[in-house]
Amino acid sequence: MNREAQEAWRPRRIAVIGVGLLGGSVALAAKRRWPDATLVGSSRNPATRQTMLDRQVVDHAVADAIQCVADCDLIIIAAPVGHIARLLPEIADASDPEAIITDVGSTKQEIVAAAEAHPAAALRFVGSHPIAGSERTGVENASVDLFQGKLSITTPTGQTDPIRHDRVKRFWEQIGCRVISMSPADHDLALASASHMPHIASAALALALPQEFAHLTGSGFRDATRIAAGDPLMWRQIVEANAPAVLAQLQRYESAIGQFRGAIANQDWAGVEKLFIDAQAAKQSIDAATCGPVDDSE
Amino acid sequence: MNREAQEAWRPRRIAVIGVGLLGGSVALAAKRRWPDATLVGSSRNPATRQTMLDRQVVDHAVADAIQCVADCDLIIIAAPVGHIARLLPEIADASDPEAIITDVGSTKQEIVAAAEAHPAAALRFVGSHPIAGSERTGVENASVDLFQGKLSITTPTGQTDPIRHDRVKRFWEQIGCRVISMSPADHDLALASASHMPHIASAALALALPQEFAHLTGSGFRDATRIAAGDPLMWRQIVEANAPAVLAQLQRYESAIGQFRGAIANQDWAGVEKLFIDAQAAKQSIDAATCGPVDDSE
Repeated sequence: MNREAQEAWRPRRIAVIGVGLLGGSVALAAKRRWPDATLVGSSRNPATRQTMLDRQVVDHAVADAIQCVADCDLIIIAAPVGHIARLLPEIADASDPEAIITDVGSTKQEIVAAAEAHPAAALRFVGSHPIAGSERTGVENASVDLFQGKLSITTPTGQTDPIRHDRVKRFWEQIGCRVISMSPADHDLALASASHMPHIASAALALALPQEFAHLTGSGFRDATRIAAGDPLMWRQIVEANAPAVLAQLQRYESAIGQFRGAIANQDWAGVEKLFIDAQAAKQSIDAATCGPVDDSE
Repeated sequence: MNREAQEAWRPRRIAVIGVGLLGGSVALAAKRRWPDATLVGSSRNPATRQTMLDRQVVDHAVADAIQCVADCDLIIIAAPVGHIARLLPEIADASDPEAIITDVGSTKQEIVAAAEAHPAAALRFVGSHPIAGSERTGVENASVDLFQGKLSITTPTGQTDPIRHDRVKRFWEQIGCRVISMSPADHDLALASASHMPHIASAALALALPQEFAHLTGSGFRDATRIAAGDPLMWRQIVEANAPAVLAQLQRYESAIGQFRGAIANQDWAGVEKLFIDAQAAKQSIDAATCGPVDDSE
């Protein structure tokens, strides 16, 4: 494809495979940005297909992913992260040979590897991870503004078509995202620290609280455990796909907890205060580094 | 004192020792509830005294706690939790022998023991802990509505005067709190689980994040680490005063983290999902148990 084609390009017919919170929000945002585009969404769940149509999230709702991608020039796989790698080859084979394929998976190495192992997908797939979501799930919670000001990460490799990569980056920008690019391995390592391990830390907090003290928790505990309400299957799949990096960051976290435990056990109160001072400084520089609202990692 | 006196009682002159976020908010709420009452606040910091007066948080601002309590019938010690036990005897000696003394300390055993070790304080002190606060501190952040719908815990013992205890409970209720009572030991054990250890878990999350990934954090990480921005000295004093209970709950937390680590290391993905399911269920029942807005634990 040449630059002119690039400049002129806009999605004409968009397939969204798996229309939940993210897929539904992508569809709503794309329809607002490109009113002339046709949106086709797939879900195996009849109630979900009905909701898609009732909420006008898509123009057409179909049960089958293969049927969904026919004649589309942009295909966004928003299925659970555990299914994306499996869906990719069949979607690549069933779709237009020119079509661009991307995804919204929270982990990238496994998915990108699946694409690159399949010739029909290798050149056409561009890995994406929009860092947006909520502990709420489902198309009923989809929002046209979910991506406004959020970060979307693309994960090109040596095999990625630069033109298609440009188009995918532009797609996310056009629906409101800031876009950065990194390798799938760098992405998974970074997200293990910024999202996946913290989810475990939050879930463990909810697990460790003796139920008889639940009525004594305040907003600090409530906020610290908000993400623990997230979809267990989704998070199991994320951890499963990124286990080595999650374990490595978990070790860093357990070591930080251990520093507190050691200082308290040794009655080293100056040491405890120093840890709180360092944590406060870290928190402040982390907040300063996140420009604009960025919704929770998914 | 008899019941008639009890029914008729209302604070006439209120001393607030230490006018920061909590002390200032108590003063503002008490003045709104009892416009005829005189509010006297103490702070060693001239700038704080000026802010108290500029914001009309108190009617009189003094430097000295002893001077502050003269002729008051209700004395609220809102000094840092590490100073309350030390201040109690001199305040008891300097104040009217009928005056009620309470506090807002986040830990209670050490403070109540200090009161009961001092005859002039033993009968007149009622331990309190309003579970309200913010990672923001200082009288400049004081709010007349801080206590609306919040939980306030009183910690009476066998030595506590029941009439004064009733009056302190009523005081918190009159400025908007729900009030429950428990022993100082039960309070400290419960708050180690509901607040003190979770603060460490949040601080450790901020410490464990590699700074180069800070820009990739989302709202999940932001919320999970919000309390890590809290005052390091205050939290050091809380942990110092409640170390055994904090260490015990830290062990529970590390064991929950260890369950995740073990399941991931063993590639027991069903086990990981089960932990996330249990955490989600725990989070939901914790949220259901906290009736009404309760602000973060302090």
